[in-house]
Amino acid sequence: MTRADFFNYFDRLNLDGMDKRTFLKTSLMAGLVPPFSFKDFPAVGNQTILFQGDSITDAGRDKAQYYANNASGLGTGYAHMAASSLLERYPDRHLRIYNRGISGHKVFQLAGRWEDDALQLKPDVLSILIGVNDFWHMLNGNYDGTVATYENDLRNLLKRTKDALPGVQLIMGEPFVIKGGSAVGSGRWMTEFPAFQSACRKVATEFKASFIPYQSIFDNVLSKGGAAYWCPDGVHPSLAGARLMANAWISIYEKLG
Amino acid sequence: MTRADFFNYFDRLNLDGMDKRTFLKTSLMAGLVPPFSFKDFPAVGNQTILFQGDSITDAGRDKAQYYANNASGLGTGYAHMAASSLLERYPDRHLRIYNRGISGHKVFQLAGRWEDDALQLKPDVLSILIGVNDFWHMLNGNYDGTVATYENDLRNLLKRTKDALPGVQLIMGEPFVIKGGSAVGSGRWMTEFPAFQSACRKVATEFKASFIPYQSIFDNVLSKGGAAYWCPDGVHPSLAGARLMANAWISIYEKLG
Repeated sequence: MTRADFFNYFDRLNLDGMDKRTFLKTSLMAGLVPPFSFKDFPAVGNQTILFQGDSITDAGRDKAQYYANNASGLGTGYAHMAASSLLERYPDRHLRIYNRGISGHKVFQLAGRWEDDALQLKPDVLSILIGVNDFWHMLNGNYDGTVATYENDLRNLLKRTKDALPGVQLIMGEPFVIKGGSAVGSGRWMTEFPAFQSACRKVATEFKASFIPYQSIFDNVLSKGGAAYWCPDGVHPSLAGARLMANAWISIYEKLG
Repeated sequence: MTRADFFNYFDRLNLDGMDKRTFLKTSLMAGLVPPFSFKDFPAVGNQTILFQGDSITDAGRDKAQYYANNASGLGTGYAHMAASSLLERYPDRHLRIYNRGISGHKVFQLAGRWEDDALQLKPDVLSILIGVNDFWHMLNGNYDGTVATYENDLRNLLKRTKDALPGVQLIMGEPFVIKGGSAVGSGRWMTEFPAFQSACRKVATEFKASFIPYQSIFDNVLSKGGAAYWCPDGVHPSLAGARLMANAWISIYEKLG
């Protein structure tokens, strides 16, 4: 039987919540599942991809639609765009793609929901974009974290992730700020935020995460259209900016081993 | 002054609802607008693109967000995907992209809202995908139209459009049905729907519209994943199917004169 046949067969079984791995093992022993060879499964097969982050990732997703590959559940931002392009390009991979970004979140808030919104999903590829609120909420007096808090929180989050999921492939997006955006008038964005970006890059390197340098990716296109076109408030990308991010994300994904 | 400078200047003016063309003409005569040359404007500049259709185009768009280039206003389907890709690719074109698809609509319902939802927007490029409900609602007994009704309604709609907007470039999407989809079990989809597709192609040809053969585009990929992957109910595309459509749409758009 082909791999597709197998998955069709497997997906149509009513397992009533039984763990699929347990079911598969038991059933194979009992001869209930037609024989197949594991060599039918390429390394990338049946891959789970998870997007985690703040509002840039959330992008208005319908949180009631928390299933994989759900159009409104993926929001209307770069995660949705990257997901749809990957699903179109790789029908053989049986991709399961989730978005669990939540607007306003900082690293410690990801940590608070990490069991439900990351570890339980057992992602093969975990993409994280976080940090703009760790700075912004400090700047506006609603948070007393510092760049050291951000770095330590992020390091602890990635350590916890790697401990639980040793094989996970990490993609870290660089948090970014677009000069000229309507919400980033304070000069402190330009003088202090780069330290958060450096901290992100440092932690990404420590955990051998693939790093997406969103700051330079945006900076490189600003000569055409400016912040108003790509990221009007300096934090939340426009459709054009989100697609720019999705293209960069896909390039990094396609370089994963 | 460059074209971008001009548009920045122009966009920041508070015209208080004054027609921009009238304003421009008057102001130029009065010397209020810095001089610029029309040769600075490529033919594709400041282009308005409108997506019209039924639920496939609607794709859950937030109808309160009716402004151009709005992420949730464009829905989560092929229109959103095509729009974001075009906006990312062509920052110089000053694209204004709208989605006015409404779920469940047939041609006569587009006609009923055509003034507000098409003509007033003065699209340079008008994309229409309509027809599946003209058949489906007949099939389930909720509509007494026929293939002739569909063809005549579509012809009248395009004639009215060309009369009002002689320079508009039309893109007609072929309505499609994916065999094996959960909602298209009736054999009549396979025997009778092709006549609707032929009617669409015929009218598109009469009006020199660019035609997107979605049926064969889907048929060509079904060997990998089947209807369940690309278009589970046979009518509404998955994320993968919507991106497939968006890619085809972009190819046709890029061939426009």
